[in-house]
Amino acid sequence: MTGMTVPLTLNPDRLFPAEQSTRAITRKLYQQVKDLPIISPHGHVPPAWIADDIPFSDPASLLLTPDHYVNRVMHGQGVDLADLGVPVGSEFSADQARNAWRIFCKNWKLYRGTPMKYWMEMELVEIFGVDVTPSEETADQIYDTIQSAIEKPEFKPRALMDRFDIKFMATTDDPCDDLAFHEKLANDASFKRQVRPTFRPDKYLEPAKEAWNGLMDKLAEVSGENTDTFDGWIKAMENRRAYFKDHGAISSDHSHADLGTEPLDKAEADRLYERARQGKITAEEGKALRQTFIFEQARMASEDGLVMTMHPAVYRDYDEATAERFGADVGSDAPTAVDVVHGLHAVLNAFGKNPNYRLVIFTMDETVYSRELGPLAGFYPSLYVGVPWWFIDAPDAIKRFRRAVTEYGTFYKTSGFIDDTRAFLSIPARHDMSRRLDCVHLSELVAEHRLTMEEAEELAHELVVDIPTHVFSIPA
Amino acid sequence: MTGMTVPLTLNPDRLFPAEQSTRAITRKLYQQVKDLPIISPHGHVPPAWIADDIPFSDPASLLLTPDHYVNRVMHGQGVDLADLGVPVGSEFSADQARNAWRIFCKNWKLYRGTPMKYWMEMELVEIFGVDVTPSEETADQIYDTIQSAIEKPEFKPRALMDRFDIKFMATTDDPCDDLAFHEKLANDASFKRQVRPTFRPDKYLEPAKEAWNGLMDKLAEVSGENTDTFDGWIKAMENRRAYFKDHGAISSDHSHADLGTEPLDKAEADRLYERARQGKITAEEGKALRQTFIFEQARMASEDGLVMTMHPAVYRDYDEATAERFGADVGSDAPTAVDVVHGLHAVLNAFGKNPNYRLVIFTMDETVYSRELGPLAGFYPSLYVGVPWWFIDAPDAIKRFRRAVTEYGTFYKTSGFIDDTRAFLSIPARHDMSRRLDCVHLSELVAEHRLTMEEAEELAHELVVDIPTHVFSIPA
Amino acid sequence: MTGMTVPLTLNPDRLFPAEQSTRAITRKLYQQVKDLPIISPHGHVPPAWIADDIPFSDPASLLLTPDHYVNRVMHGQGVDLADLGVPVGSEFSADQARNAWRIFCKNWKLYRGTPMKYWMEMELVEIFGVDVTPSEETADQIYDTIQSAIEKPEFKPRALMDRFDIKFMATTDDPCDDLAFHEKLANDASFKRQVRPTFRPDKYLEPAKEAWNGLMDKLAEVSGENTDTFDGWIKAMENRRAYFKDHGAISSDHSHADLGTEPLDKAEADRLYERARQGKITAEEGKALRQTFIFEQARMASEDGLVMTMHPAVYRDYDEATAERFGADVGSDAPTAVDVVHGLHAVLNAFGKNPNYRLVIFTMDETVYSRELGPLAGFYPSLYVGVPWWFIDAPDAIKRFRRAVTEYGTFYKTSGFIDDTRAFLSIPARHDMSRRLDCVHLSELVAEHRLTMEEAEELAHELVVDIPTHVFSIPA
Repeated sequence: MTGMTVPLTLNPDRLFPAEQSTRAITRKLYQQVKDLPIISPHGHVPPAWIADDIPFSDPASLLLTPDHYVNRVMHGQGVDLADLGVPVGSEFSADQARNAWRIFCKNWKLYRGTPMKYWMEMELVEIFGVDVTPSEETADQIYDTIQSAIEKPEFKPRALMDRFDIKFMATTDDPCDDLAFHEKLANDASFKRQVRPTFRPDKYLEPAKEAWNGLMDKLAEVSGENTDTFDGWIKAMENRRAYFKDHGAISSDHSHADLGTEPLDKAEADRLYERARQGKITAEEGKALRQTFIFEQARMASEDGLVMTMHPAVYRDYDEATAERFGADVGSDAPTAVDVVHGLHAVLNAFGKNPNYRLVIFTMDETVYSRELGPLAGFYPSLYVGVPWWFIDAPDAIKRFRRAVTEYGTFYKTSGFIDDTRAFLSIPARHDMSRRLDCVHLSELVAEHRLTMEEAEELAHELVVDIPTHVFSIPA
Repeated sequence: MTGMTVPLTLNPDRLFPAEQSTRAITRKLYQQVKDLPIISPHGHVPPAWIADDIPFSDPASLLLTPDHYVNRVMHGQGVDLADLGVPVGSEFSADQARNAWRIFCKNWKLYRGTPMKYWMEMELVEIFGVDVTPSEETADQIYDTIQSAIEKPEFKPRALMDRFDIKFMATTDDPCDDLAFHEKLANDASFKRQVRPTFRPDKYLEPAKEAWNGLMDKLAEVSGENTDTFDGWIKAMENRRAYFKDHGAISSDHSHADLGTEPLDKAEADRLYERARQGKITAEEGKALRQTFIFEQARMASEDGLVMTMHPAVYRDYDEATAERFGADVGSDAPTAVDVVHGLHAVLNAFGKNPNYRLVIFTMDETVYSRELGPLAGFYPSLYVGVPWWFIDAPDAIKRFRRAVTEYGTFYKTSGFIDDTRAFLSIPARHDMSRRLDCVHLSELVAEHRLTMEEAEELAHELVVDIPTHVFSIPA
Repeated sequence: MTGMTVPLTLNPDRLFPAEQSTRAITRKLYQQVKDLPIISPHGHVPPAWIADDIPFSDPASLLLTPDHYVNRVMHGQGVDLADLGVPVGSEFSADQARNAWRIFCKNWKLYRGTPMKYWMEMELVEIFGVDVTPSEETADQIYDTIQSAIEKPEFKPRALMDRFDIKFMATTDDPCDDLAFHEKLANDASFKRQVRPTFRPDKYLEPAKEAWNGLMDKLAEVSGENTDTFDGWIKAMENRRAYFKDHGAISSDHSHADLGTEPLDKAEADRLYERARQGKITAEEGKALRQTFIFEQARMASEDGLVMTMHPAVYRDYDEATAERFGADVGSDAPTAVDVVHGLHAVLNAFGKNPNYRLVIFTMDETVYSRELGPLAGFYPSLYVGVPWWFIDAPDAIKRFRRAVTEYGTFYKTSGFIDDTRAFLSIPARHDMSRRLDCVHLSELVAEHRLTMEEAEELAHELVVDIPTHVFSIPA
């Protein structure tokens, strides 16, 4: 340690309100939920990590490379993503990993005021026992601390899953996946936790995109259904949803450029489907057919009971040069405005009061919380408001979410926290942040005499356990 | 009382900020306005209740059935609206009423964090002296308490109007209404309070809707004008506005899917009007003609001086099955985004600086407060920003409203509170909530040295009395 | 002084949070930045004032007439802008000036809760030593105090620039301007501060507007380039940008109705340009060509290094009668919604990672802060989020800005404060307000243990000095 090192500690009251009487309430509420097991109904951890209990290789590949939340901030200051090991799986030597870590530590101040700082500090301190703030001077010391830890068996994924007390974790999977990793885990009597697949058919619902026809061929092969007709597509999809359900799936997840769900009439859908299979569909027709596909997914969900989650309105691969060089999901996606009321009209009218259907909408367009999602979820038994997602999974945005949704949407029509992350080590920190912030919101309502302490205590527990368990039908 | 009952009390500091120095200021401001008479320039209480002083029948019909704010929350958890007595006027026995009340009490926790809880608690405690929290166990006890109260003369509408100290109350009325109830009240020397009609011509301005031609025939009959031409429509409207004004109306109210006010040229309006009378108008043409009608209403308002209020951008009867089964206004309406700047361009350019014209815009699209409504109301003498309406008539939304509108719209270009409710017994609670929240906002400005205490005291009074009296030309 | 006068003082803790532990932190942070020199990278002070050191004539012409922020609030209550001396440069006698001042003082209460009150109080107290609150009774007294001050040499613009410690100030200038005032200042060895021009070509980029062809002729004359072709337009623009850069400009500024930047292909641009020069271009074509022009400006900026600022989405001259009577910029402009993601796609893909290009986007559509601008600026090295502008340059809006942008956009991708004002005397007050509010935000993060005190102290300084210096390449 040099004179330049700054100690790193976690304040037990972090994120709590400054006002002392409110903080006292927050503390009391948080005590009651902080150690509850983690339920993670939606995320992106590769199931292979758990199934094969693959040890982590180095600090950079573990904490930086796969985490576009972290990478993009450095990119915004001109750091080359390649220097951080992007894309995942590229050649990345130990020297390069150490260099990436140094770049990160040198740029640590960029994260001030961001949730990435909150998560990372908690990972460093609580998981690895790091006690110095990242900086140019401390980079190697921290790197070595983490490196020597992850070489030990207690830092392998299954051990960490126990340590983190993750009771339930969903992964995200391609409809044609054989779910072998999930099967391995389900058949492993020594593994006491639940890892479940999620049916994520986005690419199979975009008939105007180049990859679609190849995917249809693959889908035909895997499902044994002829996908040359819309009817065949339906059967193939039903087949794969059933396969996923048999392998423990509780939900399907969907992310498209808009929320439209208005179906074409059958004849027109058949016609467009045929054109799509011939590679002749226009972008506009492709959109109409995709909205029909989504309506069909909702219809299937109302029958097979898989909870439907939607994460709409992202302009994917916004920076074309970056996408070309590094592939998808490296940080250049951009959220856009969303129209919930008109978009969901068809699905809500068809299935919104169906007791077997459940739909959770996630958004980064905060304007719809009080204007559209809260009011609609307040009324429709099937509809739930997802917690803030991605670029708004952050303290101030989460507080705004609670204040915007609760008054007419109610606490009981929100989804419970989902971490939505591929950064496995950040899962406890993300759930901790959410629990703290929900306790902050509740404590403020108590301090203003809008809830009694008893009501807040019950709600704090429900938000962590009962509500996500109900919304996602989490198995016991 | 069993061991399960939880006492119900109202904290005198409810809704006040936790920070003690700010709370002290809030208390002081609130003391000065809490007992001022209620001015209610816009609402939906049936005038017959007051004119005929009709006693209330049972707790459910009084507090649940007609209140879609309350009903929809239970519907969102799968409760059948029919079990709550919807639609109003359906067969509803005493047993059914009691059962509806039990459903409500059992679901009481759903309302945590909502304004419905605030209002209902205040109604139960202050009006009926209830002292236990609603629950499955206390449902019958509370039901009996309310039932025995409303059988007494002091719980009849006129007595309650005195008890609530409602100085002025506007109802909402059909243009063809004969306003007999208002006339009865005006001619009743024993009735010391003011109940005034509001001209609400929405249906008469929607030429593409099925009901329109029948309404035109009725309008012709009532007004004595030939409504087969646009000129006739204008004369008929002027006739009915004059009738309303003669019967004490101070305003007209308008709610359509958008805020557009651009008029067609006269020849095109004549042509479309004729097509509409032939039942041949398209939806698009109907919209253009409706915007022309609205422009005409503004022109009339600039002449007859009726204040014009607009509550735009709601997707009415969103759930079609619900509308078919229960009729309109039972909770499935959904707010949408609104474009104020382009929508109001025609009307503001024509009448926005006319000293005889006053326009109040209510919205549930909070994004326009700081971006469009505040700036426009700051500039145009005729324009006022309505307080939060319906799904945003709630503590956190009201605080956001004040913080978004005041900085460039100013306090003095807001409307003053309107309760907009058919839930008669909730009127004092709604005004109380508004007064408390305005005092909270003012006290925060004082605590941050942005206003002096003297300025805040004057404003607290102006927001309750002077501003609505001026905006709506409330008679002395 | 009569019994009616109310003392006017500035609380040293104004704008600071009420909660005492947070306030203590705010105080400490503010102490460290309050006396730092002012950097003003974008504003509207006429350079002639400084170059010729022109004394101010009277309080109304100085503080009211040119300030549409102040005027419009009185207009919103029916005051005639002519009575306030609008348009600037109209006949305005000393009597009229005094009368305008009386109108303002009589209407003082309208400004409660607005930033105009904050700025004006600070100007009155700190610059002129006024110690009474404006009112009908105090109007003359305050008028006389200011009048006698501005007749003294120490109240001339250059002396005030020293007193205000304005280190750097940019003006806004027409591309054909000869920048003689800037040259005079640059050549004046006695003048120790920097006043730089800004290239503002809006009108030259709107080919469908009536004035455009005349401007093209003028541009040809001044640049020596033939502006009959698109290629000529490009050369002429490059010529003028070079001229501005030679005269010290650091940026160009752009304000159009939308943010679109998608260029036409060259042949189509040539064709439309030709039509425009023939006066035959449609509004729609004009918009497409203007977006092409903007793309070209970005391309030039990526080569000459002038920072590009954009202030989009204002409906200019919204009230047509007012514009006709008083000209532009007198307060009737109205902000509108903006689409950042699609609008900037072309420019960001072309230049967003170019180290020589810097783009700062200002908006009054707060919805894009967390949804579009924060995420995009987080990723693109060239993109920065401008601080709140115009109708949202106000305490509550600024707090919302920091809370919406920081979490994924980071502090380091914001612009630093710009005052954007023609109200020269308000510059210190505007910067003071910004510094206080940034310290408030930082202190709240410290109080909630989201930043350490050391991190906040560094940030407080960076926000005032390092960040604007970097973003705008402010010379040392």
